[in-house]
Amino acid sequence: MRRKNNKGKLTISLSIPEKKIILGIDPGSLKTGYGLIESSGNRLRFLECGTIKTGGGPLPPRLQIIFKDIQQVVRHWSPDEMAIENVFLARNPDSALKLGQARGAAICAVMAENIPVSEYTANQVKQAIVGKGHAAKSQVQHMVKVLLNLNTTPQADAADALAIALCHANTRKTMLELKPSASSRYPAEVLGAIRGRRKKRFTL
Amino acid sequence: MRRKNNKGKLTISLSIPEKKIILGIDPGSLKTGYGLIESSGNRLRFLECGTIKTGGGPLPPRLQIIFKDIQQVVRHWSPDEMAIENVFLARNPDSALKLGQARGAAICAVMAENIPVSEYTANQVKQAIVGKGHAAKSQVQHMVKVLLNLNTTPQADAADALAIALCHANTRKTMLELKPSASSRYPAEVLGAIRGRRKKRFTL
Repeated sequence: MRRKNNKGKLTISLSIPEKKIILGIDPGSLKTGYGLIESSGNRLRFLECGTIKTGGGPLPPRLQIIFKDIQQVVRHWSPDEMAIENVFLARNPDSALKLGQARGAAICAVMAENIPVSEYTANQVKQAIVGKGHAAKSQVQHMVKVLLNLNTTPQADAADALAIALCHANTRKTMLELKPSASSRYPAEVLGAIRGRRKKRFTL
Repeated sequence: MRRKNNKGKLTISLSIPEKKIILGIDPGSLKTGYGLIESSGNRLRFLECGTIKTGGGPLPPRLQIIFKDIQQVVRHWSPDEMAIENVFLARNPDSALKLGQARGAAICAVMAENIPVSEYTANQVKQAIVGKGHAAKSQVQHMVKVLLNLNTTPQADAADALAIALCHANTRKTMLELKPSASSRYPAEVLGAIRGRRKKRFTL
């Protein structure tokens, strides 16, 4: 954008989209999927995805596996932001308790490194990826493969994690393009987390 | 114990009970109680207790508070073992999910420092402290005050955490006194966690 500043000099303000690494997590007490993408303006790039399998037995050692594995991923890639599914309707108290603990372990592994966390409902993720809130799981997997230009379809949990990361990349892009007045509807911590685009100025 | 070794020398094997610091945690998404005691043979000593209040709002920052505060307590006291209540029957899926996440955060803060975790049901804790599985909360609070020789009754959540720590101290003492054949009924990780009593040998 060309405009004159206070001293009458012509300045060009270039908006250079910063590269942001986004970590998506789909937690579970048996299997926790994770996926990393790089978002830069309109470009999305696949980095890594995987599934952390905890096996059976008592829950504390399984939570330790989730925590340490996610911590390792976080320390390797240093993601800028993390996105996770927000569960509102659990099937029953027992599975909710197990899922909750796995979710707590994953969130703590990320927040221990002071990385901001955003939450999305399953419908928000599907809407962002497939354009339909009640899309089938296979459709989400297919779209993840297409959007990230992958050769093979990732495993279910890893694909879900990548879908959450893609949903966040899409949402943060939209929110950054919104006027400040419109974005004031969003919570401050979410806005704070996604506003990191620096502007470089060149004076002629 | 006096006995002759292979070379015919008289040896005295003294069993010196080691001091163990036990951390008890009563997790909750709004309030998480913690209590630390020192167990040495039959002696129990109060060290510290408190309540971590997380306030309202989105859960991830609250989990971060639980994780960081417990981590601070763990790094300050370096407890040898941790005990936590095992929840089997949650009221509803929503509260189970919240409780699960708080529990996951607390467990991860402890297991990140490689401290073994033991789990006890509410009935086991009450049985160990009051001698009755369905004792009232006030009875547990009173017995915690008596057993640890405290001047004032601790707050409800902190008292519950101390009760869990006392239950673990009691259980580990009993299990150490059991014959190996009898203790083989207990899981290996629990036995491994509680067997830390060193024997010092003096040769005459």
